[in-house]
Amino acid sequence: MIHAVYPGSFDPPHNGHLDVIRRGKTVCDRLTVAVLGNPLKSSYLFSLEERVDLLREATAGLEHVEVETFSGLLVEYARRKDAQIILKSLRGALDFEYEAQMAGLNRTLYPPAETLLMLASPEWSFLSSTRVRELASLGADVSGLVPEASLRALRAKFG
Amino acid sequence: MIHAVYPGSFDPPHNGHLDVIRRGKTVCDRLTVAVLGNPLKSSYLFSLEERVDLLREATAGLEHVEVETFSGLLVEYARRKDAQIILKSLRGALDFEYEAQMAGLNRTLYPPAETLLMLASPEWSFLSSTRVRELASLGADVSGLVPEASLRALRAKFG
Amino acid sequence: MIHAVYPGSFDPPHNGHLDVIRRGKTVCDRLTVAVLGNPLKSSYLFSLEERVDLLREATAGLEHVEVETFSGLLVEYARRKDAQIILKSLRGALDFEYEAQMAGLNRTLYPPAETLLMLASPEWSFLSSTRVRELASLGADVSGLVPEASLRALRAKFG
Amino acid sequence: MIHAVYPGSFDPPHNGHLDVIRRGKTVCDRLTVAVLGNPLKSSYLFSLEERVDLLREATAGLEHVEVETFSGLLVEYARRKDAQIILKSLRGALDFEYEAQMAGLNRTLYPPAETLLMLASPEWSFLSSTRVRELASLGADVSGLVPEASLRALRAKFG
Amino acid sequence: MIHAVYPGSFDPPHNGHLDVIRRGKTVCDRLTVAVLGNPLKSSYLFSLEERVDLLREATAGLEHVEVETFSGLLVEYARRKDAQIILKSLRGALDFEYEAQMAGLNRTLYPPAETLLMLASPEWSFLSSTRVRELASLGADVSGLVPEASLRALRAKFG
Amino acid sequence: MIHAVYPGSFDPPHNGHLDVIRRGKTVCDRLTVAVLGNPLKSSYLFSLEERVDLLREATAGLEHVEVETFSGLLVEYARRKDAQIILKSLRGALDFEYEAQMAGLNRTLYPPAETLLMLASPEWSFLSSTRVRELASLGADVSGLVPEASLRALRAKFG
Repeated sequence: MIHAVYPGSFDPPHNGHLDVIRRGKTVCDRLTVAVLGNPLKSSYLFSLEERVDLLREATAGLEHVEVETFSGLLVEYARRKDAQIILKSLRGALDFEYEAQMAGLNRTLYPPAETLLMLASPEWSFLSSTRVRELASLGADVSGLVPEASLRALRAKFG
Repeated sequence: MIHAVYPGSFDPPHNGHLDVIRRGKTVCDRLTVAVLGNPLKSSYLFSLEERVDLLREATAGLEHVEVETFSGLLVEYARRKDAQIILKSLRGALDFEYEAQMAGLNRTLYPPAETLLMLASPEWSFLSSTRVRELASLGADVSGLVPEASLRALRAKFG
Repeated sequence: MIHAVYPGSFDPPHNGHLDVIRRGKTVCDRLTVAVLGNPLKSSYLFSLEERVDLLREATAGLEHVEVETFSGLLVEYARRKDAQIILKSLRGALDFEYEAQMAGLNRTLYPPAETLLMLASPEWSFLSSTRVRELASLGADVSGLVPEASLRALRAKFG
Repeated sequence: MIHAVYPGSFDPPHNGHLDVIRRGKTVCDRLTVAVLGNPLKSSYLFSLEERVDLLREATAGLEHVEVETFSGLLVEYARRKDAQIILKSLRGALDFEYEAQMAGLNRTLYPPAETLLMLASPEWSFLSSTRVRELASLGADVSGLVPEASLRALRAKFG
Repeated sequence: MIHAVYPGSFDPPHNGHLDVIRRGKTVCDRLTVAVLGNPLKSSYLFSLEERVDLLREATAGLEHVEVETFSGLLVEYARRKDAQIILKSLRGALDFEYEAQMAGLNRTLYPPAETLLMLASPEWSFLSSTRVRELASLGADVSGLVPEASLRALRAKFG
Repeated sequence: MIHAVYPGSFDPPHNGHLDVIRRGKTVCDRLTVAVLGNPLKSSYLFSLEERVDLLREATAGLEHVEVETFSGLLVEYARRKDAQIILKSLRGALDFEYEAQMAGLNRTLYPPAETLLMLASPEWSFLSSTRVRELASLGADVSGLVPEASLRALRAKFG
């Protein structure tokens, strides 16, 4: 059974994330969305619980997809979950450089987990959670950029 | 069953190709190495038959790996083979730009086949068949860069 | 009056070109699509006349847009036309590097014409005339990628 | 009338900014330099008023150029000003990636404003306000990098 | 006598640094590793003294290599040391953009010191002090990534 | 004694080449400009002898600089000349990717010769022999881009 882990902060989940999840589930038998709970980082907009809930609502009904949390080393988590694939999304050459660095490092630490990169769909290639938070904080209408659950949560934060 | 197609010219196969094949077979149930026979291109060093033979020899013993030829549209071939994954290797930001373009186009033509990108192992990140041919033609020792089968074939060509 | 020149080979025109033309006409008072007739290059699929005709058909009805041919130095042509802007489209970091080189050179030769770069719309960011010709020659359906005129012309070439 | 907005922090204005302003005014009928007053960011070296004053002094005598402040969404500001062009400067591939992301997002939010990218002149391609602040704080002579007004202001800050 | 300065934060030194030092000493007569003591930055993991000690231990026995500290402008330091070369390491296109900017600026400030870029060895191309600190703080085994001295120091910090 | 080899086609030499030679001679004791005579390539504009003559004229009076020809493997040539440095010039991220690939390969073939990359001066960052040939063939005035010797030779070719 091919098991892929799709890690991220998802603060909050946006349409680019959901696109990767929908496409990602077709290239494996089981896809685990792994939400990073970094205890050292206090600057998340949404708590770990909130981010997990938003993802669960947004992925409800998608078979073979589950949402979990992890902390610590990603490869350690992949090892524990017996995942062959670490799935990452690429929006541009900048992401590529960063992911190449992380993939190289992760392979040194735990060779069995292969990092596979999926290109963001063109329509979401400019989207990131950072931008979504910025836009929402400035009062922009982000309803075309995030799933219903995230939209509701952003409105609760920013009014 | 997750089926991945790994397309290329493999003129000739080198160690970077074999590294991708070995790692690629761990992220799917079946890996088909698809050797491009482009009838319009007459500048191959090795014939389609030779390239297939070199790959078959170099991948002998690898389970769930097979070597085939294809011509025409890659997505058409992926569709016929019922492959969910088109596996490509990335050596650097340059490859990334090219593969992003091809993946975008291929998705327009046939959405079900997802392009997944695997980063070349650092030690092969500078290797390409073009460079191998150049080096061999200049009399360089390429024994550390290609499998035994390719080495023999290159020596037969360049003496 | 702000006059922009949008140069290219347009062999053949595709939807990305038309998107740039439609968006480009909003940032100037007059947009001249300048089709390159390079007498040294014999490898065009369509003749200069055919490419001009295809563009004229595809841009019919667009006000303040005209289609012309040019040969020789682009900056010389811009100077003759009293154009302040050389409009180019960017699909990715690769295009950027090339256009940066050309823009630097052109500014040395004729400072008054400024090169302005417009980002390709995400949905066309993977599209080029080279890919369109390849796809059409392989029998792919390119009806979603090119305007009606180009589609007809490609079918006439490739059957 | 073609109206372009050139947004930025200008903390402080440097010679690269002024080069873009001088070249930018030739590609439109009216150029508004829009100084960002981000209320959330407290780490500016110069206040919004100071930055506006520095730009006004440095652009005095340039016809059709005005300096204003804005806060909130850039596209919202462009809409209010009836600007067809958002003018940005590119120094390298890194800037390109960032601007591509922002332009994509801005087009989603407000399609009528087109982002046009102007390549930094080679002699200023390595210049940024961040570097200017760093250099001035270390006591370097930045007189060749910034206009008179910024030089005076930096000396007042760093002695 | 050709004298090269290799500047950095080295917080802590890792195997990529040592690889550059070993290779760098072959392209000059004297190599000075210059450890940056930025008084404005309080977020170093190791003190300036600790970083110098770690480097001295790790480079002990390497002839013509010395370790020093510097603060302020790098080019000012290079001028004082009569160094013809500022040696920097490149891991990827991202590093390239940053180093190109710094080199351009440094040449403006002090033309006699040439920046020369050395490509990181493939096996260390994904390594940075930031990643090493992250990994060590998460309890990962970094013994394959750093010299003995750094390993001991990291263990003392993170237990 | 530090010996650097600066290889290239120099078809013809331009101001960017001469800038690298002048700056390159300050970072070594001896600089050999190595003109590639590739017997397989028949598309040079100038013969090997012409290119050597143009370079010798353009570098006359520069101490410790010599011009030679080489064919075959660059690292083989560097080995024969006892050169510690292969000096290459970088104009942008594109060059970087190519040079990284070549440097990686060359290090595999002959570790003692280190590739060092020197950034093109901003004013020549858009210059290449290919562009010079194109411009000259189109009748452009390239007197600001190439040394006197190349200018004369280009005029003799293109009238």
